[in-house]
Amino acid sequence: MEVQEILKAVQGGSLTLEEAELKLKLKPFEDLGFAKLDEHRAIRQGMQEVIYGASKTPEQILTIAQKMDENGCKNILITRMKPEAAELVKTKLDLFYDPLSRIGIVNRESVDSGNGRIVVVSGGTSDMPVCEEAALTLEALGNKVDRIYDVGVAGLHRLLANLEPIMAANVVIAVAGMEGALASVVGGLVDVPVIAVPTSVGYGASFKGVSALLSMLNSCASGTAVVNIDNGFGAAVMASRINHMKGKNG
Amino acid sequence: MEVQEILKAVQGGSLTLEEAELKLKLKPFEDLGFAKLDEHRAIRQGMQEVIYGASKTPEQILTIAQKMDENGCKNILITRMKPEAAELVKTKLDLFYDPLSRIGIVNRESVDSGNGRIVVVSGGTSDMPVCEEAALTLEALGNKVDRIYDVGVAGLHRLLANLEPIMAANVVIAVAGMEGALASVVGGLVDVPVIAVPTSVGYGASFKGVSALLSMLNSCASGTAVVNIDNGFGAAVMASRINHMKGKNG
Amino acid sequence: MEVQEILKAVQGGSLTLEEAELKLKLKPFEDLGFAKLDEHRAIRQGMQEVIYGASKTPEQILTIAQKMDENGCKNILITRMKPEAAELVKTKLDLFYDPLSRIGIVNRESVDSGNGRIVVVSGGTSDMPVCEEAALTLEALGNKVDRIYDVGVAGLHRLLANLEPIMAANVVIAVAGMEGALASVVGGLVDVPVIAVPTSVGYGASFKGVSALLSMLNSCASGTAVVNIDNGFGAAVMASRINHMKGKNG
Amino acid sequence: MEVQEILKAVQGGSLTLEEAELKLKLKPFEDLGFAKLDEHRAIRQGMQEVIYGASKTPEQILTIAQKMDENGCKNILITRMKPEAAELVKTKLDLFYDPLSRIGIVNRESVDSGNGRIVVVSGGTSDMPVCEEAALTLEALGNKVDRIYDVGVAGLHRLLANLEPIMAANVVIAVAGMEGALASVVGGLVDVPVIAVPTSVGYGASFKGVSALLSMLNSCASGTAVVNIDNGFGAAVMASRINHMKGKNG
Amino acid sequence: MEVQEILKAVQGGSLTLEEAELKLKLKPFEDLGFAKLDEHRAIRQGMQEVIYGASKTPEQILTIAQKMDENGCKNILITRMKPEAAELVKTKLDLFYDPLSRIGIVNRESVDSGNGRIVVVSGGTSDMPVCEEAALTLEALGNKVDRIYDVGVAGLHRLLANLEPIMAANVVIAVAGMEGALASVVGGLVDVPVIAVPTSVGYGASFKGVSALLSMLNSCASGTAVVNIDNGFGAAVMASRINHMKGKNG
Amino acid sequence: MEVQEILKAVQGGSLTLEEAELKLKLKPFEDLGFAKLDEHRAIRQGMQEVIYGASKTPEQILTIAQKMDENGCKNILITRMKPEAAELVKTKLDLFYDPLSRIGIVNRESVDSGNGRIVVVSGGTSDMPVCEEAALTLEALGNKVDRIYDVGVAGLHRLLANLEPIMAANVVIAVAGMEGALASVVGGLVDVPVIAVPTSVGYGASFKGVSALLSMLNSCASGTAVVNIDNGFGAAVMASRINHMKGKNG
Amino acid sequence: MEVQEILKAVQGGSLTLEEAELKLKLKPFEDLGFAKLDEHRAIRQGMQEVIYGASKTPEQILTIAQKMDENGCKNILITRMKPEAAELVKTKLDLFYDPLSRIGIVNRESVDSGNGRIVVVSGGTSDMPVCEEAALTLEALGNKVDRIYDVGVAGLHRLLANLEPIMAANVVIAVAGMEGALASVVGGLVDVPVIAVPTSVGYGASFKGVSALLSMLNSCASGTAVVNIDNGFGAAVMASRINHMKGKNG
Amino acid sequence: MEVQEILKAVQGGSLTLEEAELKLKLKPFEDLGFAKLDEHRAIRQGMQEVIYGASKTPEQILTIAQKMDENGCKNILITRMKPEAAELVKTKLDLFYDPLSRIGIVNRESVDSGNGRIVVVSGGTSDMPVCEEAALTLEALGNKVDRIYDVGVAGLHRLLANLEPIMAANVVIAVAGMEGALASVVGGLVDVPVIAVPTSVGYGASFKGVSALLSMLNSCASGTAVVNIDNGFGAAVMASRINHMKGKNG
Repeated sequence: MEVQEILKAVQGGSLTLEEAELKLKLKPFEDLGFAKLDEHRAIRQGMQEVIYGASKTPEQILTIAQKMDENGCKNILITRMKPEAAELVKTKLDLFYDPLSRIGIVNRESVDSGNGRIVVVSGGTSDMPVCEEAALTLEALGNKVDRIYDVGVAGLHRLLANLEPIMAANVVIAVAGMEGALASVVGGLVDVPVIAVPTSVGYGASFKGVSALLSMLNSCASGTAVVNIDNGFGAAVMASRINHMKGKNG
Repeated sequence: MEVQEILKAVQGGSLTLEEAELKLKLKPFEDLGFAKLDEHRAIRQGMQEVIYGASKTPEQILTIAQKMDENGCKNILITRMKPEAAELVKTKLDLFYDPLSRIGIVNRESVDSGNGRIVVVSGGTSDMPVCEEAALTLEALGNKVDRIYDVGVAGLHRLLANLEPIMAANVVIAVAGMEGALASVVGGLVDVPVIAVPTSVGYGASFKGVSALLSMLNSCASGTAVVNIDNGFGAAVMASRINHMKGKNG
Repeated sequence: MEVQEILKAVQGGSLTLEEAELKLKLKPFEDLGFAKLDEHRAIRQGMQEVIYGASKTPEQILTIAQKMDENGCKNILITRMKPEAAELVKTKLDLFYDPLSRIGIVNRESVDSGNGRIVVVSGGTSDMPVCEEAALTLEALGNKVDRIYDVGVAGLHRLLANLEPIMAANVVIAVAGMEGALASVVGGLVDVPVIAVPTSVGYGASFKGVSALLSMLNSCASGTAVVNIDNGFGAAVMASRINHMKGKNG
Repeated sequence: MEVQEILKAVQGGSLTLEEAELKLKLKPFEDLGFAKLDEHRAIRQGMQEVIYGASKTPEQILTIAQKMDENGCKNILITRMKPEAAELVKTKLDLFYDPLSRIGIVNRESVDSGNGRIVVVSGGTSDMPVCEEAALTLEALGNKVDRIYDVGVAGLHRLLANLEPIMAANVVIAVAGMEGALASVVGGLVDVPVIAVPTSVGYGASFKGVSALLSMLNSCASGTAVVNIDNGFGAAVMASRINHMKGKNG
Repeated sequence: MEVQEILKAVQGGSLTLEEAELKLKLKPFEDLGFAKLDEHRAIRQGMQEVIYGASKTPEQILTIAQKMDENGCKNILITRMKPEAAELVKTKLDLFYDPLSRIGIVNRESVDSGNGRIVVVSGGTSDMPVCEEAALTLEALGNKVDRIYDVGVAGLHRLLANLEPIMAANVVIAVAGMEGALASVVGGLVDVPVIAVPTSVGYGASFKGVSALLSMLNSCASGTAVVNIDNGFGAAVMASRINHMKGKNG
Repeated sequence: MEVQEILKAVQGGSLTLEEAELKLKLKPFEDLGFAKLDEHRAIRQGMQEVIYGASKTPEQILTIAQKMDENGCKNILITRMKPEAAELVKTKLDLFYDPLSRIGIVNRESVDSGNGRIVVVSGGTSDMPVCEEAALTLEALGNKVDRIYDVGVAGLHRLLANLEPIMAANVVIAVAGMEGALASVVGGLVDVPVIAVPTSVGYGASFKGVSALLSMLNSCASGTAVVNIDNGFGAAVMASRINHMKGKNG
Repeated sequence: MEVQEILKAVQGGSLTLEEAELKLKLKPFEDLGFAKLDEHRAIRQGMQEVIYGASKTPEQILTIAQKMDENGCKNILITRMKPEAAELVKTKLDLFYDPLSRIGIVNRESVDSGNGRIVVVSGGTSDMPVCEEAALTLEALGNKVDRIYDVGVAGLHRLLANLEPIMAANVVIAVAGMEGALASVVGGLVDVPVIAVPTSVGYGASFKGVSALLSMLNSCASGTAVVNIDNGFGAAVMASRINHMKGKNG
Repeated sequence: MEVQEILKAVQGGSLTLEEAELKLKLKPFEDLGFAKLDEHRAIRQGMQEVIYGASKTPEQILTIAQKMDENGCKNILITRMKPEAAELVKTKLDLFYDPLSRIGIVNRESVDSGNGRIVVVSGGTSDMPVCEEAALTLEALGNKVDRIYDVGVAGLHRLLANLEPIMAANVVIAVAGMEGALASVVGGLVDVPVIAVPTSVGYGASFKGVSALLSMLNSCASGTAVVNIDNGFGAAVMASRINHMKGKNG
């Protein structure tokens, strides 16, 4: 209904003032055709739905995964999936499950649709769950990943010994807890985007990752950006988007 | 000197124990040929030096800029440049200066070496200095930029009215102070990397940008990463690196 | 006793100095008739007592609820009620109990004494316990409620698809964790009071709801006010008071 | 263009794949008719534009105010208006200006379109600028206001002496710095909505209003909600919306 | 009017329902006779009014002080008094003014109405303004004061050299910035109440007094309580009340 | 050994330089006669030892208590005593134990050695453990206590109904969590020292007592001081010292 | 390969541009001979590897310890070792294990390679786990240790009674929780380096060690430095390095 | 007076009870002979007095410096000395003054009494004032200093190019703002004590040095300790004490 029509209907008495006022407020949005919106989702976001497992029951997870499986989905990603959910889903679907990172993947397939390789570097072995959340997510999203773990700056030679793959990467994800200095050192070595992931590893004044987070936000190396504490998944989505960017000629 | 040589020299008395110990410690690093390192810098980092103007005198800035100019540099970028520095540099060099963002550019040239366009969106007009720091840096680094300012989420229609350029971008930089919700809303609309820049705009419980920073780190939209408060320059370097990424075939 | 009387009694020796001093201090308050105060309570606060279940034993809750039941109370509200308390109360009284929000209601009755409808919107399914604490409280206080859940700003179309009931509401309660952007977006769409409830949903830099709280306090949308983290009950009391406000002619 | 048309155009070659993909992404939003949106603004938000003076030059303020004046606006509100802006605007328009709260009002007119009265109570005289920002905004938005200042809880009798107007109010705005206890005490006395405004008044551990803010968020009195530190304007908008709510029969 | 009268008046129509409801709400408070309250103030609080100079103009301060002078007041205390206010007041009244602590006292008189002596100890000379605010307030309230300054724990012998007066005191006020350890050391030596005053002296991680405040709150010495940062006045009021306590037989 | 002697011994060779240097450093402290110090402890601190039960095994507590019992001690106080410790001690000694506050008292005796009564007021029933820690400690230290619980400011009439004992007290301990406003309201009513105890009662933005702590530190009522969160014991020691102060004539 | 060679290879086509660019980036580092680096580790860091037990399984700890044992290592240090790991290791190796500090030492041997003695002082018995982590680490690293525990500043005489060993030490480690004042008092007495270790001992506003940490950072005694909360191990490594420093003639 | 004498005097009436009680309290301290304490100060602390210039007038500084000069002192150190104080002192004494670090030294003399060299490394040129405060203090205390500035980790090669002097040092002071990663990297390279100094250099989430401070406290490199933000002086005192430590044979 156009604005004039609305006003006429008011004049004619077929619309109350309240109904008319509401219609005028809604006007700018009314033709959106929201029913179609869901179909557009995958197109708009460039990525099929990811199942966030933390707040769902095993049954809910199974139901969603089965629907996606019926639609022919591959690499159905489930994050923060509890072992009991994995056990249930395994009875019905082809599930890969990594208990360390709590990542589950239904119908896992190796795909390489990205422009290059992505390196995940980490400061210490305690950072592994976050690293693997990132690495497995990256692979499920179609990226080739190099894992270079336990190369914290307290033993600089370990990092320097791995310079070649780091410098050849298209994107680097730097995962570190405690003082988070790894992100700055790596950021100073490479010329590609670095995504820093602070972890909650540490004690005392690490404040469950806040120290690493602040350190990474203040990195003296430009070309670095930061995600939430322990958010390996978010870093992977960002990195995958970068790695799937179209080149000059599309 | 090799390890064996060192030990022999100790045996023979031509090296004291202290000298030998120091040599052994340095061994892993000694052949680095650091003198050559500086030549490699531009190659390694993919970007010529940027002059950080905040802690330099006008004379120091002029001297550095003149050397770079003599080496034939274009788009010499000076950040956080005070007006008095701009006045001095202008007397000797071809300087573009924007007093709002305090960005100076010597020998400015329009270049488009990136893969696509970068959009800078902002919540309000008070965010302009940070936005322009980002936008002018992006242009100096060879990117095409669309500026879409003052589209904060309190008036959602303003943002929706600009959907086309935002969705066509290769990278989006979302700049916002106060509650920083813009980053989440934009992050939920696009499928390209979003770099969020919290600004110190606000009062009271905005805590000079901390509120916006936390909001952006917790964004429920994946594919977003965050830089330091008011760090338009850092966001631009990150975005430019993404936009200059090589495609599948290099 | 009047001031002069007190002083005379001192002069005459029937009052010690200490007794007189205390009487003078108490003078302004002494005629309050506190015994009558409790009768006035329901009138003064416009609402019968609510039983805060968190720090009470099942037996204590039962005792209070039974007394109110004997007085003919309907919709006796018990918040943060543990399952074991619910089990006990059920054996004696007609109890409705929602284990998710831990709301219990004795002698539940549907009443609509408010001016209009109240909408409860939420960012994600994890916010449900807080949402239901608000919604069930609202209903017990005599309001009609529309629940619009899981419409977080990362998928803006979900929110826009529900514009009609949101815009037709008399009050909106916006419940969100993580970055809490929902409150700002909703606040920018409607012209009625918005009460924002931050939740402790999130991890890392969400700091158990602090990020959402700060975000909501800094909302760029005017006409929004905030309650404590996870305080669905408080938001509902505020909203119900607004919805029961008298119109121009009382 | 409908989805099918888009796909056909791709088939036929009149659309590149990139153009088609962008069109599909925009589909849900394209018929919004944004040009008309601005006209709807006043309707949607129920309030004409307010000029936020803090980040605008005197000339910018004058220009906006003049346009609104030409459109016949009354009670044009300018917040955080600096004295020099007031001086300029006064030369051209009929401006009321209060230097304490920095509120300016062009074409001020007394209107009473609300349902009842709104009381602004404050803890101390230092809270006056925030109080008056609230009170003058309320009046400009068509509300009758009672000012009850300097009734902090350290002298409880001062507050009790003003019980009558407080209890007769439709909404109460409680403004306090330091420990902010006023909001709890008032919230325990009345049965109408209380909007608490923490102020930055205090020193040391008041942390520029944080102490009062936390105090108000934790108020043991239900029916209270809080706005940002020193945000008298925001509290007034919220209160005015409540006071203009339609009664049962519209 | 009694409750029954109110209800009858409603029945008879001489009271509207609204008027009656308000009367019933006010009932518990109505006979307070507030007009008399102010006369009771000095009795109730045991102390004549103190003029808080920080937010008052010189003229306002003068006016209040003159009224108190006309009423025959001695030791009229003005805190945080700016030099320009002191200059004005001096032209009309007999003012003592200490520019370091910004304490002013009109009609200063030496009185000793307390039970014993009060010691003010401080860590360093930079704490002097807060110390003197405390000491001069104490004297104006009728206490004898011993000042023992610059005896910080880094030079323990300085403190030990002053043990005698400290141990003979009735109350000790311990003033310290930086790490605030003085309060714990003193608290471990004496058996009288210790009031700790953190000061904003320090830099970096002293966070303007927060470090000293936390230190004092966590003192391992029992019998210590703390006031706000830099609040020498508050500590003095507390100490004076203690020192004026009545003994066993009043 | 005097300084000259030390130097001579060095000259004569009977002292090495190192021994001499250490002796000189120790000189100022060497005659302290520390062995006698312990005997002086009770005198110096005015209070026999209190057993802090939190970090001691039941056996350790029993051993200490038995020794004190053998020395004829009465009212042997044990704080934060776990139930299992109480059970053990009860088998050997005459123990009073309160499981709520975890206070144990061996050889409990009613004593009244103070100058007057001490009132403990609290905001809500959840504050009881802290209140009783204070009240039982006070009694063990020889004070008469009035308990006035659950008189939070949200229902001001409950507090006002208890004005008489509060105003007749020699010291008031105000215990409150959440927003801690009780301390300010009480502080504004009385003219005796008020010791405020913040409790960790609350949720969300109460931050485990920080909100109440800040509120109390910023109290607009003078004559109030604060102890650590949940530190009922510390408040009681402070209050007892005040209540045992000698009057004017000792 | 030298730079010229690289460029020629590009010219000649035997190197792609990408390969050449990577080689140029790596140039400064390529001759490092990293394989040899590990051999240098003990030399470079002056200390054999320490096994951080917190994030390792008992089996992993055993494996590493066995390898070091086979290499003839003595005093193999395992920190934060869980009891179950100790039980396993004991079955195969000669393990000393202290359950309080969770320190394990394989092939423990008493060595004294330092310049002098190190004193560990602590405030209270609850600090013991951190103290022993420091003391046992010190001994394993070849230092003689004096333990002086439970000498908190609330009973100054206990500290003064131990002046002799404290003043004779080469390094002092001061361990304290709560208000951490011990570090300042000790720092003011001695002329050797003091390493302060804040502990998480305390409650309420101790904020798990933050209060002690801030206190120590702000110590008014120069010559003090601080390590992380509860980091007894780190303090010991620092102290041992100081104690093993070479004198003037090496 | 001995304890028995005191008691007899009480019995005999020559001492009041109050006097006796005080004497008994003081007993443990009375023979300290404090008058002699000051002479011992230099011996006890191993360092002549340093003049803290921040809170002293130029005249006060001159007076103290002149007295020390008359006593023949060399290298009289004045920290945080304002330029106007330097100008005054220069008129009377032989003053070296560095306006950057605000260090003044009267009767400066080059001395080398330490065991080895101390290196001061810094992240950026903005850290210079803090670096020079440390370096000039070190020299005044008799140490040889190597300054290696502007070697932040973002350009790792700059640091590696200076490995030789860093590895040959006896102590390293690492000065850095922003993310403070320098301390960790240096700490991982050397085997001598590292003292980390966070600086307030940075903006936004550097929080005036807090980010660097936390980073340094959490350093994954053992053997590092931290001083307060911007406390170059404190780091130098600590380092000098280490460098003047006696070797094995004194």
